[in-house]
Amino acid sequence: MEFFDSEAAWLDFLRARAPFPDGFRAATAGLSFTPAERPSDQTYSMNLALITADPAVTSFAALFTRNRFPGAPVIIARERVKGDALAGILVNNRISNVCSPTGIGDAERLTRELARYTGGRSERYLSVSTGIIGWSLPLEPMVEQLPALVNGLGSADALDTARAIMTTDGFPKLRAASIGRARVVGVAKGAGMIEPNLATMLVFFFTDARIERRRLQRSLTSAVESSFNRISIDGDQSTSDMVLAMSSCLYDVDPAQFDSCLQQLAAELAQDIVRNGEGTCHVIRATLRGLRDERTAAVLAKGVINSPLVKTAVYGNDPNVGRIVAALGDIAGNQGIELDAHDVTITIGAEKVFGDGVFWLDKHKENRLCSYLRQAALDPSLRGYPQHDRTVDIDISCGSGSAATTVFGSDLSHEYVSENADYRT
Amino acid sequence: MEFFDSEAAWLDFLRARAPFPDGFRAATAGLSFTPAERPSDQTYSMNLALITADPAVTSFAALFTRNRFPGAPVIIARERVKGDALAGILVNNRISNVCSPTGIGDAERLTRELARYTGGRSERYLSVSTGIIGWSLPLEPMVEQLPALVNGLGSADALDTARAIMTTDGFPKLRAASIGRARVVGVAKGAGMIEPNLATMLVFFFTDARIERRRLQRSLTSAVESSFNRISIDGDQSTSDMVLAMSSCLYDVDPAQFDSCLQQLAAELAQDIVRNGEGTCHVIRATLRGLRDERTAAVLAKGVINSPLVKTAVYGNDPNVGRIVAALGDIAGNQGIELDAHDVTITIGAEKVFGDGVFWLDKHKENRLCSYLRQAALDPSLRGYPQHDRTVDIDISCGSGSAATTVFGSDLSHEYVSENADYRT
Repeated sequence: MEFFDSEAAWLDFLRARAPFPDGFRAATAGLSFTPAERPSDQTYSMNLALITADPAVTSFAALFTRNRFPGAPVIIARERVKGDALAGILVNNRISNVCSPTGIGDAERLTRELARYTGGRSERYLSVSTGIIGWSLPLEPMVEQLPALVNGLGSADALDTARAIMTTDGFPKLRAASIGRARVVGVAKGAGMIEPNLATMLVFFFTDARIERRRLQRSLTSAVESSFNRISIDGDQSTSDMVLAMSSCLYDVDPAQFDSCLQQLAAELAQDIVRNGEGTCHVIRATLRGLRDERTAAVLAKGVINSPLVKTAVYGNDPNVGRIVAALGDIAGNQGIELDAHDVTITIGAEKVFGDGVFWLDKHKENRLCSYLRQAALDPSLRGYPQHDRTVDIDISCGSGSAATTVFGSDLSHEYVSENADYRT
Repeated sequence: MEFFDSEAAWLDFLRARAPFPDGFRAATAGLSFTPAERPSDQTYSMNLALITADPAVTSFAALFTRNRFPGAPVIIARERVKGDALAGILVNNRISNVCSPTGIGDAERLTRELARYTGGRSERYLSVSTGIIGWSLPLEPMVEQLPALVNGLGSADALDTARAIMTTDGFPKLRAASIGRARVVGVAKGAGMIEPNLATMLVFFFTDARIERRRLQRSLTSAVESSFNRISIDGDQSTSDMVLAMSSCLYDVDPAQFDSCLQQLAAELAQDIVRNGEGTCHVIRATLRGLRDERTAAVLAKGVINSPLVKTAVYGNDPNVGRIVAALGDIAGNQGIELDAHDVTITIGAEKVFGDGVFWLDKHKENRLCSYLRQAALDPSLRGYPQHDRTVDIDISCGSGSAATTVFGSDLSHEYVSENADYRT
């Protein structure tokens, strides 16, 4: 992954990748409103982003949250992606439109009005929302913006779009690649409520590579499994998670090359999300090896990176390796996963800290581990762009099985608590 | 549960309950040491508590952690509670003796030396440890204290014992009750690493009620299921969890009355542990109703109280009810639990916030919910002893099933992060 010393160099890098693939256009807009559910008259701002395909594309793919209380956008999109074509996505930040008394109707009205201005069919548009759960969309101010958005199509690139859909994200998330004449561009948002089986987030891929619809779905499912399903900020899967891919199918590509390109972009966006996690001061990369199957490896690895005690110790640059062992034993014991302490070897960075059933610790090693954690911390005064590329590497070998997986997580910091203790103000 | 305006009144209450039941004696001691694994020459203090039964009791019961990497004390105790009698427990705080290269040998040596001084049999003693995971016990300084401990037996009551076994606990945990001439006394320690299926902690019950061994095990298992298995501070189950009951069988009691007495004391100690959770500013009491079975109710309830986003919102006195719905839907969806949003009703305090599949919110209700959260917060300047009795009550009805359960959890505060970011210094 690319990192830069200056913000300007980084933005140059992103801008060079920001044009949409052929067949797609976008526009963004802003508005302000006063929520009906909030005691004060405080004004909130909201961004809208509209991305359209002209003509509507017949190759597209989607994955949705497993949360049992999905937002109206997810409920509607699940139906509409069964249709024959997709013409565009309207995304708003700030309010997620979940279980609102008027939620389904609001989302339907937005796409109906949108279709009126584009001359398209409303069931070919998706209304996508992210932000506070529980409030209703400020519908009239949103509808008012639609004519300007449609007239402005083509004025926004993927970087503008990535910026518009941010909530608590610290930086826009955009990754792109070329395959011959074809391009693949991905934008994402997500910083909290990030876990499992579709990290909590919105991700949109746009491509002009000719990939047939069912193949695109297979490729997307596989790319998500090894990327967004392997990160966790706080173990919470939101009501609004969605990963969407749309292809205008203009340029021939090798499908296998497309698969690996999508996989690479998904992995990069997933890492961008973790690095940008709410209050993330250390990025933790845990690799579990030697298991019989990858699913078990992922369960154990997520158990370790989601342990509040492991996360706070890493935050404090305290190599409290006992908590890693405790977390591993906890998840194994309580999920019924067989694991013998004598088969387990744990290294942090280059230091072996556990093997043959016992801790391998001494005061010199402890000193080196403290330094290792300290140098892996994000230092706002030193960091590059989008952020530094350091990780706290925890490698856990559990036996002689052939399955392995790597997951990315974050520490648990004062910044996380502050950001989430009063997110809505 | 009893609460007091002054610390003196509270301590009077505890002292009146602190004498051990007949047949048990105790002593405590302190020592200081320098850990071999720590870079600096910093000195740490450690408490020892010895509780003995004379004669050794033949009625006793135990439950242990499900963690796959149990400490040496758990490994040894699992074997020894299969024996015919138990003569005593030696408890140390500060270091938990888990996966130490010398751990098993250290624990065996402690009980061997102890038996030498008491004239008993070493396999009838348990060495129990709690504290930092990964370091080795300071064996020689501990052994040096044993003669004084044995000579001092009878000098400590259960309150002294409860104090000696504390780690990050803010106050000693002691509950006691009488059944006719018989008494039941319980002491506990635990403040972090509290979750599921044996909250992370040490709990010891002593009684002189005549309860046959198998009956005592049944009674203890049932009491633990409805108390310690229904609390969670941070979802971490430690390597050293242990609940132990010993009876000197001196006085006849009604076994059913004993069951309900043990259940009551376990519930009170479990609540003491939550109220004393590391950095706990609000105690959250979540009740799940209308499920088909209690296990499912507990999974959903713990999913809600363990959500970092729910916990931080409560900490911030922010009634972000969307996060409760998101957490409930997350755990249901990802654990394969059927749940229809239209069957779900959620109230916080006296306010209905969700019903018929949608949020029930307005700005006046939001104001009332803010006030409700604020008044439920622990206020150090106002609180009673052991602490106030307020809770944040979340009541979730999920359908027409007859199973229900109540779990207790805590918010996620800056104090929790601070306490755990450098626990070992």
